[in-house]
Amino acid sequence: MELWYTEKHSDNVGITLKASQSLFSGKSEYQQLDILDTVDFGRMMLLDGLVMVTERDEFVYHDMIVHPALFTHPDPKQVLVIGGGDGGSIREIVRHPGVELATLCEIDGLVVEKSVELLPSMASAIDGKHPRVKLHIDDGLAYIRDHQNSFDVILVDSTDPIGPAEGLFEEDFYRLVHSALKEDGIMVAQSESPFYHAEIQKNMYRNLRAVFPIVEMYQAFIPTYPSGLWSFAFASKRYHPVHDFDRSRATNRTFETRYYNEDLHLGAFMLPTFARENIRE
Amino acid sequence: MELWYTEKHSDNVGITLKASQSLFSGKSEYQQLDILDTVDFGRMMLLDGLVMVTERDEFVYHDMIVHPALFTHPDPKQVLVIGGGDGGSIREIVRHPGVELATLCEIDGLVVEKSVELLPSMASAIDGKHPRVKLHIDDGLAYIRDHQNSFDVILVDSTDPIGPAEGLFEEDFYRLVHSALKEDGIMVAQSESPFYHAEIQKNMYRNLRAVFPIVEMYQAFIPTYPSGLWSFAFASKRYHPVHDFDRSRATNRTFETRYYNEDLHLGAFMLPTFARENIRE
Repeated sequence: MELWYTEKHSDNVGITLKASQSLFSGKSEYQQLDILDTVDFGRMMLLDGLVMVTERDEFVYHDMIVHPALFTHPDPKQVLVIGGGDGGSIREIVRHPGVELATLCEIDGLVVEKSVELLPSMASAIDGKHPRVKLHIDDGLAYIRDHQNSFDVILVDSTDPIGPAEGLFEEDFYRLVHSALKEDGIMVAQSESPFYHAEIQKNMYRNLRAVFPIVEMYQAFIPTYPSGLWSFAFASKRYHPVHDFDRSRATNRTFETRYYNEDLHLGAFMLPTFARENIRE
Repeated sequence: MELWYTEKHSDNVGITLKASQSLFSGKSEYQQLDILDTVDFGRMMLLDGLVMVTERDEFVYHDMIVHPALFTHPDPKQVLVIGGGDGGSIREIVRHPGVELATLCEIDGLVVEKSVELLPSMASAIDGKHPRVKLHIDDGLAYIRDHQNSFDVILVDSTDPIGPAEGLFEEDFYRLVHSALKEDGIMVAQSESPFYHAEIQKNMYRNLRAVFPIVEMYQAFIPTYPSGLWSFAFASKRYHPVHDFDRSRATNRTFETRYYNEDLHLGAFMLPTFARENIRE
Protein backbone atom coordinates (compact mmCIF):
# COMPACT_ATOMS: atom_id res chain seq x y z
CA MET A 1 0.00 0.00 0.00
CA GLU A 2 1.21 3.52 -0.79
CA LEU A 3 -0.06 6.05 1.74
CA TRP A 4 -0.11 9.66 0.56
CA TYR A 5 -1.25 12.59 2.68
CA THR A 6 -2.61 15.53 0.67
CA GLU A 7 -3.42 18.89 2.24
CA LYS A 8 -5.59 21.16 0.15
CA HIS A 9 -4.47 24.78 0.46
CA SER A 10 -7.55 25.74 -1.51
CA ASP A 11 -10.12 23.65 -3.40
CA ASN A 12 -7.70 23.48 -6.31
CA VAL A 13 -4.14 23.38 -4.95
CA GLY A 14 -2.44 21.11 -2.47
CA ILE A 15 0.74 19.58 -1.18
CA THR A 16 1.15 15.81 -1.11
CA LEU A 17 3.59 13.78 1.00
CA LYS A 18 4.25 10.08 1.07
CA ALA A 19 3.73 8.59 4.52
CA SER A 20 5.20 5.36 5.83
CA GLN A 21 2.79 4.90 8.74
CA SER A 22 0.24 6.48 11.03
CA LEU A 23 1.60 6.73 14.56
CA PHE A 24 -1.48 8.16 16.26
CA SER A 25 -4.98 9.21 15.33
CA GLY A 26 -7.48 10.39 17.89
CA LYS A 27 -9.92 13.08 18.90
CA SER A 28 -9.48 15.33 21.91
CA GLU A 29 -12.14 17.55 23.43
CA TYR A 30 -11.02 20.27 21.00
CA GLN A 31 -9.79 18.78 17.75
CA GLN A 32 -8.67 15.82 15.67
CA LEU A 33 -4.99 14.96 16.23
CA ASP A 34 -2.94 12.82 13.84
CA ILE A 35 0.75 12.02 13.84
CA LEU A 36 2.13 10.45 10.66
CA ASP A 37 5.59 9.34 9.71
CA THR A 38 6.46 10.75 6.28
CA VAL A 39 9.30 9.58 4.08
CA ASP A 40 10.88 12.97 3.35
CA PHE A 41 9.78 15.24 6.22
CA GLY A 42 9.98 12.84 9.15
CA ARG A 43 7.18 12.79 11.68
CA MET A 44 4.35 15.21 11.03
CA MET A 45 1.62 16.47 13.36
CA LEU A 46 -1.80 17.39 11.97
CA LEU A 47 -4.64 19.16 13.78
CA ASP A 48 -8.08 18.86 12.18
CA GLY A 49 -6.32 17.50 9.08
CA LEU A 50 -3.88 20.40 8.60
CA VAL A 51 -0.09 20.22 8.87
CA MET A 52 1.17 21.87 12.07
CA VAL A 53 4.78 20.72 12.17
CA THR A 54 7.12 18.26 10.54
CA GLU A 55 10.45 17.19 11.95
CA ARG A 56 12.31 18.37 8.85
CA ASP A 57 11.11 21.96 8.60
CA GLU A 58 9.95 22.83 12.12
CA PHE A 59 13.30 24.57 12.73
CA VAL A 60 12.13 27.44 10.53
CA TYR A 61 8.87 28.06 12.34
CA HIS A 62 10.34 27.71 15.82
CA ASP A 63 13.43 29.81 15.14
CA MET A 64 11.24 32.52 13.73
CA ILE A 65 8.43 32.64 16.27
CA VAL A 66 10.99 32.84 19.11
CA HIS A 67 14.29 34.52 18.27
CA PRO A 68 13.26 37.83 16.66
CA ALA A 69 11.36 38.84 19.84
CA LEU A 70 13.92 37.41 22.24
CA PHE A 71 16.77 39.22 20.50
CA THR A 72 14.82 42.47 20.22
CA HIS A 73 13.85 42.65 23.90
CA PRO A 74 17.09 43.57 25.72
CA ASP A 75 16.54 41.25 28.68
CA PRO A 76 13.61 38.83 28.38
CA LYS A 77 13.18 36.86 31.61
CA GLN A 78 9.53 35.78 31.69
CA VAL A 79 8.22 34.31 28.44
CA LEU A 80 4.76 32.86 27.82
CA VAL A 81 3.72 30.65 24.90
CA ILE A 82 -0.01 30.36 24.17
CA GLY A 83 -0.67 27.22 22.15
CA GLY A 84 2.50 25.55 20.90
CA GLY A 85 1.74 22.20 22.51
CA ASP A 86 4.36 20.46 20.38
CA GLY A 87 6.99 22.14 22.56
CA GLY A 88 9.20 23.50 19.75
CA SER A 89 8.82 27.13 20.84
CA ILE A 90 9.63 26.33 24.47
CA ARG A 91 12.71 24.37 23.33
CA GLU A 92 14.02 27.48 21.53
CA ILE A 93 13.14 29.87 24.38
CA VAL A 94 15.13 27.98 27.00
CA ARG A 95 18.23 28.16 24.80
CA HIS A 96 18.35 31.84 25.82
CA PRO A 97 20.33 31.69 29.07
CA GLY A 98 18.75 34.90 30.44
CA VAL A 99 15.23 33.48 30.40
CA GLU A 100 14.22 32.62 33.97
CA LEU A 101 10.91 30.96 33.21
CA ALA A 102 9.24 29.76 30.01
CA THR A 103 5.55 29.07 30.53
CA LEU A 104 3.46 27.01 28.13
CA CYS A 105 -0.29 27.49 28.18
CA GLU A 106 -1.84 24.94 25.81
CA ILE A 107 -5.58 24.28 25.79
CA ASP A 108 -5.29 20.69 24.57
CA GLY A 109 -3.53 18.26 26.91
CA LEU A 110 -3.57 15.52 24.28
CA VAL A 111 -1.29 17.57 21.99
CA VAL A 112 1.29 17.89 24.76
CA GLU A 113 1.01 14.26 25.79
CA LYS A 114 1.42 12.88 22.27
CA SER A 115 4.21 15.33 21.40
CA VAL A 116 6.22 14.20 24.42
CA GLU A 117 5.63 10.60 23.39
CA LEU A 118 6.06 10.81 19.60
CA LEU A 119 7.89 14.08 18.79
CA PRO A 120 10.69 14.08 21.38
CA SER A 121 13.01 16.32 19.33
CA MET A 122 10.43 19.11 19.62
CA ALA A 123 9.01 18.33 23.05
CA SER A 124 12.36 17.88 24.81
CA ALA A 125 11.74 20.82 27.17
CA ILE A 126 8.07 20.12 28.01
CA ASP A 127 8.46 16.63 29.42
CA GLY A 128 8.04 17.97 32.96
CA LYS A 129 11.73 17.74 33.83
CA HIS A 130 13.08 21.10 32.68
CA PRO A 131 13.78 23.41 35.67
CA ARG A 132 12.93 26.66 33.79
CA VAL A 133 9.68 25.46 32.16
CA LYS A 134 6.16 25.55 33.58
CA LEU A 135 3.26 23.83 31.88
CA HIS A 136 -0.45 24.78 32.09
CA ILE A 137 -3.18 22.89 30.31
CA ASP A 138 -5.58 25.78 30.15
CA ASP A 139 -7.39 28.25 27.92
CA GLY A 140 -4.93 31.00 26.95
CA LEU A 141 -7.52 33.76 27.37
CA ALA A 142 -8.39 32.70 30.91
CA TYR A 143 -4.74 32.33 31.79
CA ILE A 144 -3.59 35.79 30.71
CA ARG A 145 -6.68 37.41 32.28
CA ASP A 146 -5.25 36.19 35.60
CA HIS A 147 -1.68 37.32 34.89
CA GLN A 148 -1.49 41.10 34.49
CA ASN A 149 1.85 42.83 33.89
CA SER A 150 3.71 39.54 34.11
CA PHE A 151 5.59 38.78 30.89
CA ASP A 152 8.42 40.27 28.86
CA VAL A 153 7.40 38.32 25.77
CA ILE A 154 4.20 36.48 24.83
CA LEU A 155 4.22 34.19 21.78
CA VAL A 156 0.90 33.18 20.23
CA ASP A 157 1.75 29.84 18.65
CA SER A 158 -1.74 29.05 17.45
CA THR A 159 -3.58 27.16 14.74
CA ASP A 160 -5.53 28.99 12.02
CA PRO A 161 -8.39 31.32 13.01
CA ILE A 162 -10.95 28.56 12.58
CA GLY A 163 -11.73 26.20 15.46
CA PRO A 164 -10.22 26.55 18.94
CA ALA A 165 -7.85 29.39 17.98
CA GLU A 166 -10.52 31.70 16.53
CA GLY A 167 -10.51 34.04 19.55
CA LEU A 168 -6.73 34.48 19.32
CA PHE A 169 -7.10 36.78 16.30
CA GLU A 170 -9.53 39.26 17.93
CA GLU A 171 -8.93 42.74 19.33
CA ASP A 172 -10.25 41.71 22.77
CA PHE A 173 -7.59 39.04 23.00
CA TYR A 174 -4.85 41.47 22.01
CA ARG A 175 -6.01 43.81 24.82
CA LEU A 176 -5.60 40.96 27.28
CA VAL A 177 -2.14 40.20 25.91
CA HIS A 178 -1.24 43.88 26.20
CA SER A 179 -2.26 43.85 29.88
CA ALA A 180 -0.40 40.63 30.58
CA LEU A 181 2.81 42.11 29.16
CA LYS A 182 5.11 44.30 31.21
CA GLU A 183 5.46 47.94 30.20
CA ASP A 184 8.10 47.14 27.57
CA GLY A 185 6.69 43.79 26.52
CA ILE A 186 6.54 42.21 23.05
CA MET A 187 3.97 39.90 21.51
CA VAL A 188 4.62 37.72 18.45
CA ALA A 189 1.85 35.73 16.77
CA GLN A 190 1.83 33.52 13.69
CA SER A 191 -0.11 35.49 11.07
CA GLU A 192 -0.85 33.13 8.16
CA SER A 193 0.29 33.34 4.53
CA PRO A 194 0.47 36.72 2.76
CA PHE A 195 -0.14 34.85 -0.50
CA TYR A 196 -3.35 33.03 0.46
CA HIS A 197 -4.73 34.87 3.49
CA ALA A 198 -4.84 38.57 2.67
CA GLU A 199 -8.25 39.08 4.29
CA ILE A 200 -7.29 37.36 7.55
CA GLN A 201 -4.13 39.47 7.67
CA LYS A 202 -5.97 42.73 7.06
CA ASN A 203 -8.30 42.04 9.98
CA MET A 204 -5.63 40.75 12.29
CA TYR A 205 -3.23 43.67 11.77
CA ARG A 206 -6.07 46.19 12.10
CA ASN A 207 -6.91 44.60 15.46
CA LEU A 208 -3.27 44.68 16.54
CA ARG A 209 -2.80 48.33 15.57
CA ALA A 210 -5.81 49.23 17.71
CA VAL A 211 -3.91 47.96 20.75
CA PHE A 212 -0.12 48.22 20.22
CA PRO A 213 1.93 51.30 19.23
CA ILE A 214 4.42 49.20 17.20
CA VAL A 215 3.08 46.57 14.79
CA GLU A 216 5.19 44.99 12.05
CA MET A 217 4.96 41.85 9.91
CA TYR A 218 7.89 39.57 9.17
CA GLN A 219 8.20 36.58 6.90
CA ALA A 220 9.66 33.09 6.94
CA PHE A 221 9.66 30.33 4.39
CA ILE A 222 8.04 27.07 5.56
CA PRO A 223 7.82 24.45 2.78
CA THR A 224 4.93 22.45 4.28
CA TYR A 225 2.69 25.50 4.88
CA PRO A 226 0.33 26.89 2.23
CA SER A 227 2.36 28.65 -0.50
CA GLY A 228 5.62 28.22 1.46
CA LEU A 229 5.58 31.90 2.49
CA TRP A 230 4.49 32.35 6.09
CA SER A 231 4.36 35.39 8.36
CA PHE A 232 4.45 36.54 11.95
CA ALA A 233 3.06 39.65 13.60
CA PHE A 234 5.44 41.57 15.86
CA ALA A 235 3.47 43.81 18.27
CA SER A 236 5.37 45.78 20.84
CA LYS A 237 4.93 48.38 23.55
CA ARG A 238 8.38 49.95 23.30
CA TYR A 239 11.04 48.16 21.24
CA HIS A 240 11.06 48.25 17.45
CA PRO A 241 12.30 44.98 15.91
CA VAL A 242 14.53 46.76 13.38
CA HIS A 243 15.44 50.15 14.88
CA ASP A 244 16.02 48.85 18.42
CA PHE A 245 17.67 45.58 17.36
CA ASP A 246 21.05 45.08 19.01
CA ARG A 247 22.76 43.14 16.26
CA SER A 248 25.81 42.25 18.34
CA ARG A 249 23.70 40.41 20.93
CA ALA A 250 22.26 38.20 18.17
CA THR A 251 25.67 37.72 16.55
CA ASN A 252 27.15 36.62 19.86
CA ARG A 253 24.37 34.15 20.67
CA THR A 254 25.55 31.05 22.51
CA PHE A 255 23.72 28.53 20.31
CA GLU A 256 23.45 27.55 16.64
CA THR A 257 20.37 28.34 14.59
CA ARG A 258 19.72 26.76 11.21
CA TYR A 259 17.34 29.47 9.98
CA TYR A 260 17.64 32.61 12.16
CA ASN A 261 20.72 34.82 12.11
CA GLU A 262 21.47 38.48 12.73
CA ASP A 263 21.17 39.44 9.04
CA LEU A 264 18.01 37.44 8.47
CA HIS A 265 16.47 39.14 11.53
CA LEU A 266 16.52 42.38 9.56
CA GLY A 267 15.78 40.87 6.15
CA ALA A 268 12.67 39.12 7.44
CA PHE A 269 11.00 42.51 7.93
CA MET A 270 11.70 43.57 4.33
CA LEU A 271 8.52 42.34 2.73
CA PRO A 272 7.39 41.78 -0.85
CA THR A 273 5.18 44.61 -2.08
CA PHE A 274 2.01 42.49 -2.18
CA ALA A 275 2.55 41.38 1.44
CA ARG A 276 3.17 44.94 2.61
CA GLU A 277 -0.13 45.93 1.03
CA ASN A 278 -2.02 43.32 3.07
CA ILE A 279 -1.18 45.19 6.25
CA ARG A 280 -1.19 48.77 5.01
CA GLU A 281 -3.01 51.06 7.44
CA MET B 1 -13.50 14.44 -15.32
CA GLU B 2 -11.25 16.07 -12.72
CA LEU B 3 -7.81 16.81 -14.10
CA TRP B 4 -5.04 17.21 -11.50
CA TYR B 5 -1.43 17.98 -12.33
CA THR B 6 1.06 16.71 -9.73
CA GLU B 7 4.72 17.65 -9.78
CA LYS B 8 6.98 15.48 -7.65
CA HIS B 9 9.65 17.58 -5.96
CA SER B 10 11.22 14.33 -4.79
CA ASP B 11 9.99 10.73 -4.90
CA ASN B 12 7.94 11.44 -1.81
CA VAL B 13 6.72 15.05 -1.92
CA GLY B 14 4.81 17.00 -4.53
CA ILE B 15 2.49 19.85 -5.34
CA THR B 16 -0.86 19.20 -6.98
CA LEU B 17 -3.00 21.67 -8.94
CA LYS B 18 -6.43 21.26 -10.46
CA ALA B 19 -6.43 21.96 -14.18
CA SER B 20 -9.42 22.91 -16.29
CA GLN B 21 -7.91 22.02 -19.67
CA SER B 22 -4.78 21.31 -21.64
CA LEU B 23 -4.11 24.11 -24.13
CA PHE B 24 -1.05 22.64 -25.81
CA SER B 25 1.07 19.54 -25.62
CA GLY B 26 3.93 18.86 -28.00
CA LYS B 27 7.56 17.96 -28.38
CA SER B 28 10.19 20.30 -29.79
CA GLU B 29 13.66 19.33 -30.87
CA TYR B 30 14.78 19.93 -27.27
CA GLN B 31 12.02 19.11 -24.83
CA GLN B 32 8.38 18.34 -24.07
CA LEU B 33 6.24 21.49 -23.82
CA ASP B 34 2.83 21.59 -22.14
CA ILE B 35 0.56 24.50 -21.39
CA LEU B 36 -2.33 23.84 -19.00
CA ASP B 37 -5.05 26.06 -17.67
CA THR B 38 -5.23 25.66 -13.87
CA VAL B 39 -8.12 26.78 -11.70
CA ASP B 40 -6.12 28.71 -9.10
CA PHE B 41 -2.86 29.66 -10.82
CA GLY B 42 -4.10 30.50 -14.31
CA ARG B 43 -2.20 29.23 -17.30
CA MET B 44 0.88 27.19 -16.53
CA MET B 45 3.82 26.25 -18.74
CA LEU B 46 5.67 22.97 -18.19
CA LEU B 47 8.94 21.84 -19.76
CA ASP B 48 9.68 18.12 -19.56
CA GLY B 49 6.85 17.87 -17.06
CA LEU B 50 8.13 20.51 -14.61
CA VAL B 51 6.41 23.82 -13.79
CA MET B 52 8.24 26.74 -15.38
CA VAL B 53 5.74 29.57 -14.88
CA THR B 54 2.15 30.15 -13.90
CA GLU B 55 0.23 33.34 -14.57
CA ARG B 56 -0.50 33.84 -10.87
CA ASP B 57 2.99 33.70 -9.42
CA GLU B 58 5.30 34.53 -12.35
CA PHE B 59 5.52 38.12 -11.09
CA VAL B 60 7.81 36.94 -8.29
CA TYR B 61 10.28 35.15 -10.53
CA HIS B 62 10.39 37.85 -13.18
CA ASP B 63 10.64 40.75 -10.74
CA MET B 64 13.47 39.00 -8.99
CA ILE B 65 15.53 37.78 -11.93
CA VAL B 66 15.47 41.28 -13.47
CA HIS B 67 15.21 44.17 -11.02
CA PRO B 68 18.00 43.49 -8.49
CA ALA B 69 20.63 43.56 -11.28
CA LEU B 70 19.04 46.42 -13.20
CA PHE B 71 18.81 48.57 -10.08
CA THR B 72 22.35 47.67 -8.96
CA HIS B 73 24.02 48.54 -12.27
CA PRO B 74 23.95 52.37 -12.43
CA ASP B 75 23.10 52.57 -16.13
CA PRO B 76 22.20 49.29 -17.84
CA LYS B 77 21.67 49.83 -21.57
CA GLN B 78 22.35 46.44 -23.22
CA VAL B 79 20.70 43.49 -21.52
CA LEU B 80 20.75 39.86 -22.68
CA VAL B 81 18.45 37.07 -21.50
CA ILE B 82 19.60 33.49 -22.14
CA GLY B 83 16.60 31.16 -22.03
CA GLY B 84 13.43 32.84 -20.77
CA GLY B 85 11.39 32.00 -23.87
CA ASP B 86 8.14 32.81 -22.05
CA GLY B 87 9.10 36.48 -22.34
CA GLY B 88 8.47 37.48 -18.72
CA SER B 89 12.04 38.64 -18.12
CA ILE B 90 12.10 40.72 -21.30
CA ARG B 91 8.77 42.30 -20.30
CA GLU B 92 10.32 43.48 -17.01
CA ILE B 93 13.58 44.65 -18.60
CA VAL B 94 11.88 47.00 -21.06
CA ARG B 95 10.06 48.69 -18.19
CA HIS B 96 13.45 50.27 -17.38
CA PRO B 97 13.44 53.36 -19.60
CA GLY B 98 17.25 53.50 -19.79
CA VAL B 99 17.56 50.10 -21.46
CA GLU B 100 18.32 50.60 -25.15
CA LEU B 101 18.10 46.99 -26.24
CA ALA B 102 16.85 43.80 -24.57
CA THR B 103 18.01 40.70 -26.43
CA LEU B 104 16.44 37.30 -25.94
CA CYS B 105 18.46 34.24 -26.89
CA GLU B 106 16.25 31.17 -26.49
CA ILE B 107 17.28 27.80 -27.87
CA ASP B 108 13.74 26.51 -28.38
CA GLY B 109 11.62 28.39 -30.90
CA LEU B 110 8.52 26.44 -29.93
CA VAL B 111 8.60 27.92 -26.41
CA VAL B 112 8.60 31.45 -27.82
CA GLU B 113 5.92 30.68 -30.41
CA LYS B 114 3.53 29.08 -27.92
CA SER B 115 4.15 31.73 -25.26
CA VAL B 116 3.23 34.49 -27.71
CA GLU B 117 0.11 32.54 -28.63
CA LEU B 118 -1.03 31.28 -25.21
CA LEU B 119 0.72 33.36 -22.52
CA PRO B 120 0.30 36.90 -23.86
CA SER B 121 0.58 38.56 -20.42
CA MET B 122 4.15 37.27 -20.21
CA ALA B 123 5.13 37.36 -23.87
CA SER B 124 3.84 40.88 -24.55
CA ALA B 125 7.30 42.23 -25.42
CA ILE B 126 8.54 39.28 -27.53
CA ASP B 127 5.83 39.29 -30.18
CA GLY B 128 8.23 40.88 -32.67
CA LYS B 129 6.67 44.35 -32.42
CA HIS B 130 8.62 45.89 -29.53
CA PRO B 131 11.17 48.46 -30.81
CA ARG B 132 13.73 47.78 -28.04
CA VAL B 133 13.62 43.97 -28.17
CA LYS B 134 15.65 41.63 -30.37
CA LEU B 135 14.93 37.93 -30.58
CA HIS B 136 17.38 35.11 -31.44
CA ILE B 137 16.42 31.47 -31.61
CA ASP B 138 19.87 30.15 -30.90
CA ASP B 139 22.07 28.29 -28.44
CA GLY B 140 23.07 30.71 -25.67
CA LEU B 141 26.67 29.46 -25.56
CA ALA B 142 27.19 29.99 -29.27
CA TYR B 143 25.56 33.41 -29.10
CA ILE B 144 27.71 34.84 -26.32
CA ARG B 145 30.88 33.35 -27.81
CA ASP B 146 30.21 35.71 -30.74
CA HIS B 147 29.44 38.75 -28.57
CA GLN B 148 32.46 39.77 -26.50
CA ASN B 149 32.32 42.82 -24.22
CA SER B 150 28.77 43.61 -25.32
CA PHE B 151 26.35 43.56 -22.38
CA ASP B 152 25.80 45.48 -19.15
CA VAL B 153 23.66 42.70 -17.72
CA ILE B 154 23.19 39.04 -18.72
CA LEU B 155 20.32 37.07 -17.15
CA VAL B 156 20.43 33.28 -17.29
CA ASP B 157 16.74 32.38 -17.19
CA SER B 158 17.22 28.66 -17.57
CA THR B 159 15.59 25.38 -16.66
CA ASP B 160 17.17 22.99 -14.16
CA PRO B 161 20.69 21.64 -14.79
CA ILE B 162 19.29 18.49 -16.43
CA GLY B 163 18.50 18.47 -20.15
CA PRO B 164 19.16 21.42 -22.47
CA ALA B 165 20.30 23.78 -19.67
CA GLU B 166 22.99 21.50 -18.21
CA GLY B 167 25.86 23.48 -19.72
CA LEU B 168 24.55 26.72 -18.22
CA PHE B 169 25.76 25.71 -14.76
CA GLU B 170 29.41 25.04 -15.74
CA GLU B 171 32.53 27.13 -15.19
CA ASP B 172 33.26 27.26 -18.94
CA PHE B 173 29.90 28.87 -19.53
CA TYR B 174 30.49 31.44 -16.80
CA ARG B 175 33.81 32.34 -18.47
CA LEU B 176 31.96 33.01 -21.70
CA VAL B 177 29.41 35.14 -19.85
CA HIS B 178 32.25 37.03 -18.18
CA SER B 179 33.75 37.80 -21.61
CA ALA B 180 30.41 38.82 -23.07
CA LEU B 181 29.88 41.32 -20.26
CA LYS B 182 31.36 44.79 -20.32
CA GLU B 183 34.02 45.65 -17.74
CA ASP B 184 31.43 46.51 -15.08
CA GLY B 185 28.83 43.92 -16.11
CA ILE B 186 26.53 41.82 -13.95
CA MET B 187 25.20 38.31 -14.45
CA VAL B 188 22.16 36.89 -12.65
CA ALA B 189 21.14 33.24 -12.94
CA GLN B 190 18.37 31.23 -11.34
CA SER B 191 20.09 28.95 -8.83
CA GLU B 192 17.54 26.37 -7.64
CA SER B 193 16.14 25.79 -4.15
CA PRO B 194 18.41 26.08 -1.09
CA PHE B 195 16.10 23.60 0.64
CA TYR B 196 16.23 20.79 -1.94
CA HIS B 197 19.29 21.47 -4.09
CA ALA B 198 22.25 22.03 -1.76
CA GLU B 199 24.65 20.00 -3.92
CA ILE B 200 23.74 21.78 -7.15
CA GLN B 201 24.21 25.11 -5.37
CA LYS B 202 27.60 24.18 -3.95
CA ASN B 203 28.88 23.30 -7.42
CA MET B 204 27.33 26.25 -9.15
CA TYR B 205 28.62 28.85 -6.69
CA ARG B 206 32.09 27.29 -6.70
CA ASN B 207 32.11 27.63 -10.49
CA LEU B 208 30.92 31.23 -10.29
CA ARG B 209 33.53 32.21 -7.70
CA ALA B 210 36.24 30.83 -9.98
CA VAL B 211 35.24 33.46 -12.54
CA PHE B 212 33.68 36.53 -10.87
CA PRO B 213 35.12 38.66 -8.04
CA ILE B 214 31.66 39.31 -6.52
CA VAL B 215 29.27 36.38 -6.07
CA GLU B 216 26.19 36.52 -3.83
CA MET B 217 22.98 34.50 -3.49
CA TYR B 218 19.56 36.03 -3.00
CA GLN B 219 16.20 34.46 -2.34
CA ALA B 220 12.61 34.77 -3.49
CA PHE B 221 9.49 32.90 -2.57
CA ILE B 222 7.77 31.13 -5.50
CA PRO B 223 4.80 28.99 -4.40
CA THR B 224 4.79 26.65 -7.41
CA TYR B 225 8.52 25.85 -7.23
CA PRO B 226 9.93 23.03 -5.07
CA SER B 227 9.74 24.03 -1.37
CA GLY B 228 8.57 27.56 -2.25
CA LEU B 229 12.03 28.99 -1.49
CA TRP B 230 13.96 29.80 -4.65
CA SER B 231 17.27 31.51 -5.25
CA PHE B 232 19.28 33.52 -7.74
CA ALA B 233 23.03 33.92 -8.16
CA PHE B 234 24.31 37.49 -8.49
CA ALA B 235 27.78 37.50 -10.10
CA SER B 236 29.40 40.80 -10.83
CA LYS B 237 32.63 42.35 -12.08
CA ARG B 238 32.42 45.61 -10.15
CA TYR B 239 29.13 46.45 -8.41
CA HIS B 240 28.07 44.81 -5.17
CA PRO B 241 24.28 44.30 -4.95
CA VAL B 242 24.07 45.55 -1.36
CA HIS B 243 27.03 47.91 -0.84
CA ASP B 244 26.72 49.64 -4.22
CA PHE B 245 22.92 49.67 -4.31
CA ASP B 246 21.52 53.15 -4.92
CA ARG B 247 18.32 52.85 -2.96
CA SER B 248 16.87 56.12 -4.20
CA ARG B 249 16.98 54.99 -7.82
CA ALA B 250 14.90 51.92 -6.93
CA THR B 251 12.54 53.96 -4.76
CA ASN B 252 11.94 56.41 -7.60
CA ARG B 253 11.28 53.72 -10.21
CA THR B 254 8.69 54.69 -12.79
CA PHE B 255 6.68 51.46 -12.60
CA GLU B 256 4.86 49.33 -10.03
CA THR B 257 6.24 46.01 -8.86
CA ARG B 258 4.17 43.51 -6.90
CA TYR B 259 7.15 41.69 -5.38
CA TYR B 260 10.33 43.77 -5.72
CA ASN B 261 10.86 46.98 -3.77
CA GLU B 262 13.85 48.90 -2.43
CA ASP B 263 13.68 47.25 1.02
CA LEU B 264 13.19 43.78 -0.35
CA HIS B 265 16.20 44.29 -2.64
CA LEU B 266 18.36 44.33 0.50
CA GLY B 267 16.37 41.77 2.49
CA ALA B 268 16.60 39.21 -0.32
CA PHE B 269 20.36 38.94 0.27
CA MET B 270 19.89 38.22 4.00
CA LEU B 271 19.73 34.46 3.85
CA PRO B 272 18.66 31.75 6.28
CA THR B 273 21.66 30.09 7.93
CA PHE B 274 21.19 26.76 6.11
CA ALA B 275 21.08 28.54 2.73
CA ARG B 276 24.20 30.55 3.54
CA GLU B 277 26.00 27.31 4.31
CA ASN B 278 25.20 25.91 0.86
CA ILE B 279 27.39 28.55 -0.74
CA ARG B 280 30.07 28.96 1.90
CA GLU B 281 33.52 29.11 0.33
